Amino acid sequence: MRNLKITLEYDGENYCGWQTQHSRIKKPSIQQRLEKTLQKILQEKIKVIGSGRTDAGVHALGQVANFKTQSLLPLNKLKLALNALLPKDISVAKIEEAALTFHSRFSAKSKLYRYNILNQPYRSALLRRQTYFYSYPLNINLMRKEARCLLGRHDFKSFCASAGSSKYTVRAIKRIALKKNGPLITLEIEADGFLYNMVRNIVGTLIEIGRGKFPAGSLKKILLAKERKFAGPTIPARGLVLVKVNY
Amino acid sequence: MRNLKITLEYDGENYCGWQTQHSRIKKPSIQQRLEKTLQKILQEKIKVIGSGRTDAGVHALGQVANFKTQSLLPLNKLKLALNALLPKDISVAKIEEAALTFHSRFSAKSKLYRYNILNQPYRSALLRRQTYFYSYPLNINLMRKEARCLLGRHDFKSFCASAGSSKYTVRAIKRIALKKNGPLITLEIEADGFLYNMVRNIVGTLIEIGRGKFPAGSLKKILLAKERKFAGPTIPARGLVLVKVNY
Repeated sequence: MRNLKITLEYDGENYCGWQTQHSRIKKPSIQQRLEKTLQKILQEKIKVIGSGRTDAGVHALGQVANFKTQSLLPLNKLKLALNALLPKDISVAKIEEAALTFHSRFSAKSKLYRYNILNQPYRSALLRRQTYFYSYPLNINLMRKEARCLLGRHDFKSFCASAGSSKYTVRAIKRIALKKNGPLITLEIEADGFLYNMVRNIVGTLIEIGRGKFPAGSLKKILLAKERKFAGPTIPARGLVLVKVNY
Repeated sequence: MRNLKITLEYDGENYCGWQTQHSRIKKPSIQQRLEKTLQKILQEKIKVIGSGRTDAGVHALGQVANFKTQSLLPLNKLKLALNALLPKDISVAKIEEAALTFHSRFSAKSKLYRYNILNQPYRSALLRRQTYFYSYPLNINLMRKEARCLLGRHDFKSFCASAGSSKYTVRAIKRIALKKNGPLITLEIEADGFLYNMVRNIVGTLIEIGRGKFPAGSLKKILLAKERKFAGPTIPARGLVLVKVNY
């Protein structure tokens, strides 16, 4: 028996997310597509474990999953077969042998997410699929200063969607960086784990601060309030990318 | 009568190109879509003149066009209306008043094109629409050195598609730059004009050199031969972007 670790890139636009969550949703899940393709290649029932769910529309540059197989197929052949048979919007960056004890979710030490905001006066035809278009001017320096209070271990309940089932809402943010490159603003957050909609709610709140709707100091107050209703809106999935899972 | 200059961004994937060239092609042209939308807003017959054609599948960050109108609509209102009514894959970056003598094609001094090659061992799900995926290793330094011989005024007949109707095939390349950023290789070419498929044929030839199929010194020989058959293949439209038109 082998345990294989797979690193995936995907464009989430046409999927209901990593995992099927409601039977009424018509779009397939990434996990389904991957399992179906692996079964076709390996001629064996395959159960894939992802490092975590990504929501409908969220993209990935480095989602990690693992699965057990009896197959002796060499890794390079499996990778070629997967990239030949998977749909164009899913690709395999890496496949590696892992210890039998490796579990893509439980072994993960931290994850890195990136959120892309396109901050210019007109919408972009070319960047529309992977950015959130926001036309009002944003005070980046203020946003950067405010974001610092999130560093370290905190209860992030204020930024957790009510639909999230997590009872334990404490997480540790290891790094948070806001960069500006022309009209593109990117926020990168690395943490030991993320609550449901946490990145999208944090960025939604930072935007309210950057445009002047919430005053300086708001982010810390919202964090301490531990109530979702004080935070800003959940911004669209299309700007979010799971960049890396660290083990 | 006003003459308006418009700067457009578009994702060429779903279009037959800037201009309809064959009636059997079912996809609309960018020009058609733009004229239709302008006529709806301005309630007047509009004829748009583009700085030049872009082929089916080619993108633009800064295509320029102009049109004459009797309308007194303020420019900011026209821009908002266009960005509200145009399809998502076409957007308007700028609209300006121009002299009545301004002609987007004849007044153009130079154009800047960019070609994106994704040079890594596996295809990318997220960058697939705007890059040409090429998996074999490329010798970038050699490609850069070879490309230099194209600078200046030359007869580019070897890089002109036979379907091109240009009889005068001399053009002046002002700048040519090959950059590498991780797996992404971009070639930027600025010239006073371009022949049909010229950028795609130049990059296709440089790739043959970079992978070692054509020896060092080939580009100069091919340029001097003035015959299309010696050059490399025409590579896909999806990697090409019209970045800027200079006046």
